[in-house]
Amino acid sequence: MQFKILKKDGFARNAIIETKRGIINTPVFMPVGTNGTVKAMTPEEIREIGYEIILSNTYHLYLRPGHEIIKKLGGIHKFINWHGPILTDSGGFQIYSLASLRKITPQGVEFRSHIDGSLHFITPEKAIEIQLALGSDIMMVLDECVPYPAEKEYVKKSLKLTEDWAKRCKDYFEKHRNDQALFGIIQGGIYEELRQKAMEGIVKIDFDGYALGGLSVGEPKEDMYRVIKNIAHLMPEEKPRYLMGVGDLMDVLHAVEHGIDMFDCVIPTRNARNGTLFTSQGRISIKRSEFKEDNSPLDPDCDCYTCRNYTKAFLRHLYMCREILSMRLNTIHNLYFYCRFFEKMREAIAEGRFQDFKKQWIPVLEKNFSPE
Amino acid sequence: MQFKILKKDGFARNAIIETKRGIINTPVFMPVGTNGTVKAMTPEEIREIGYEIILSNTYHLYLRPGHEIIKKLGGIHKFINWHGPILTDSGGFQIYSLASLRKITPQGVEFRSHIDGSLHFITPEKAIEIQLALGSDIMMVLDECVPYPAEKEYVKKSLKLTEDWAKRCKDYFEKHRNDQALFGIIQGGIYEELRQKAMEGIVKIDFDGYALGGLSVGEPKEDMYRVIKNIAHLMPEEKPRYLMGVGDLMDVLHAVEHGIDMFDCVIPTRNARNGTLFTSQGRISIKRSEFKEDNSPLDPDCDCYTCRNYTKAFLRHLYMCREILSMRLNTIHNLYFYCRFFEKMREAIAEGRFQDFKKQWIPVLEKNFSPE
Repeated sequence: MQFKILKKDGFARNAIIETKRGIINTPVFMPVGTNGTVKAMTPEEIREIGYEIILSNTYHLYLRPGHEIIKKLGGIHKFINWHGPILTDSGGFQIYSLASLRKITPQGVEFRSHIDGSLHFITPEKAIEIQLALGSDIMMVLDECVPYPAEKEYVKKSLKLTEDWAKRCKDYFEKHRNDQALFGIIQGGIYEELRQKAMEGIVKIDFDGYALGGLSVGEPKEDMYRVIKNIAHLMPEEKPRYLMGVGDLMDVLHAVEHGIDMFDCVIPTRNARNGTLFTSQGRISIKRSEFKEDNSPLDPDCDCYTCRNYTKAFLRHLYMCREILSMRLNTIHNLYFYCRFFEKMREAIAEGRFQDFKKQWIPVLEKNFSPE
Repeated sequence: MQFKILKKDGFARNAIIETKRGIINTPVFMPVGTNGTVKAMTPEEIREIGYEIILSNTYHLYLRPGHEIIKKLGGIHKFINWHGPILTDSGGFQIYSLASLRKITPQGVEFRSHIDGSLHFITPEKAIEIQLALGSDIMMVLDECVPYPAEKEYVKKSLKLTEDWAKRCKDYFEKHRNDQALFGIIQGGIYEELRQKAMEGIVKIDFDGYALGGLSVGEPKEDMYRVIKNIAHLMPEEKPRYLMGVGDLMDVLHAVEHGIDMFDCVIPTRNARNGTLFTSQGRISIKRSEFKEDNSPLDPDCDCYTCRNYTKAFLRHLYMCREILSMRLNTIHNLYFYCRFFEKMREAIAEGRFQDFKKQWIPVLEKNFSPE
């Protein structure tokens, strides 16, 4: 995996990540394909919209259908019919947020499946073994994702565990090395000096890229913004920087400004299924009754399949009927919107006008569309 | 609307229906788009698979979003983005099967919406008014769909009502005539002499096509087959013959053999969503555990998008995860299977070998796929 910075604009970077499965232009948004499918979409649709990489969740694929089966069937790319790059998380975040009865020990983490209650034990080595079996292009280390709020003392203690696990992940990876990449994760909660300390420890181990984890987990925006502002630009310059689980576009603007390159989030896809749609006029809730007879497209400035072919009245109708096509058309639109946003943001950085881009978008992102 | 018979093979007919929105080759299967969308599909996908006409349900569109709104928005074709022919039923069948508190009087039928309990009154005139507002290409008269079992005396009395309503539909249509077509419906339960009588009455009114209604409503197959065998070939030769709500392919073979041209049914789409898939090897339940590691396509003889790109293992995985993509891929396959079946059946009729076609397919249709 190669990382090349093409242009800097302040701390904001426009770069490319070269993988054997294709180039990723950054800053990049990765749609989330939890079970190996970006919900409601085919891989071709994701590609046509313009996405170069997707994320898939190790926790889910490990439980169902199982990493051994995916390996046997030829790996994750063949299995899901997506032949571009794939990033897999370590499963840690889902163990902490979805599984029950989890018990963290220095050795690893024990938990019960949220699907069938079965008991599992994941170690750092196991997390890498699973991701090697899946065959993703970018793997993540197993960490402890500290919840918010957490006492400083607890966070401090947790960092030792996370650093220890990161080393074990790296060691295991070195022994079973192939051309997959492995990223380290920097924790530390909302405490800057702990983030700094965590970063030093993780960077020393030496990974192919670095992520900020444990943000957007319930802490006030100011705290998240402060941590990003003070830490992101200090992360290794010559490696990709990934802000895990963050995808609110306002947060993205802030993070890119301070040097983040990669994002993933369920916001565009989940909101789509819930009828919340992003437009150049602001956010729209498609179920609102004023769209009942609205013969105009969702977003007159949008060229997506949905906006080219359907009216707000029809999208509202499909939503009210809970039709599958509602989820499809809404997801296409939101993913298209996100993809164009990132594309234009990359152009802005390349042309040295990121600040203008940011200023232009803030009012749009703050706005809920209202026809009154 | 023009109807031209190209070839007869026994009573089986290969014909074309010419409408201003395109040609329909018969025997034809019409996928059901209840709320104006064939569940899980885009109109382009339906067209690409090869369908020339879809059915939509007047009852559902009348209740939501309302026929007046669809008219205002430019009609059903523009609203749903399907520009080929559309057949709408009268709403009668759904009133009898879905709505509550229905009360039939000579004037019309009163019922409560299954969605919000609101009270409605549909007369024969209203049923046509609604379909004129929708702007479908083929409309159906309002009838009483007699349930099974029903006493002969009841069926006899009901026929008078259905004939009276058919006349009123025709009269209303004559007054508001446009280039839409209107089909009459022949009821009569499982009683052949009543079917015969019903047919005479309905044919006298003179419609653009004729349907057999009230079959496949719970009666034994022998009864349904007997009625079809004795009635279908007596229906006007020079008009399309439509067997409403029937789509089991074994039933289709029987009905085509006796001269039926048109079919609609939710079987391929609903079964797809429930994981039951049609293949050249027989029916498959995709959830079966023996497909867990099956790296082969669903049907090696199928060229559909699903079979060209995915394995049984992945289809099973998607189904177990209840993913939307599962419903999409399964629906594509089943609709493709149905479309090819009808295509090959038309070819067989055109080449005078319908009986061979039937003989060849019966064992396939009887078979549940089992790898043992």
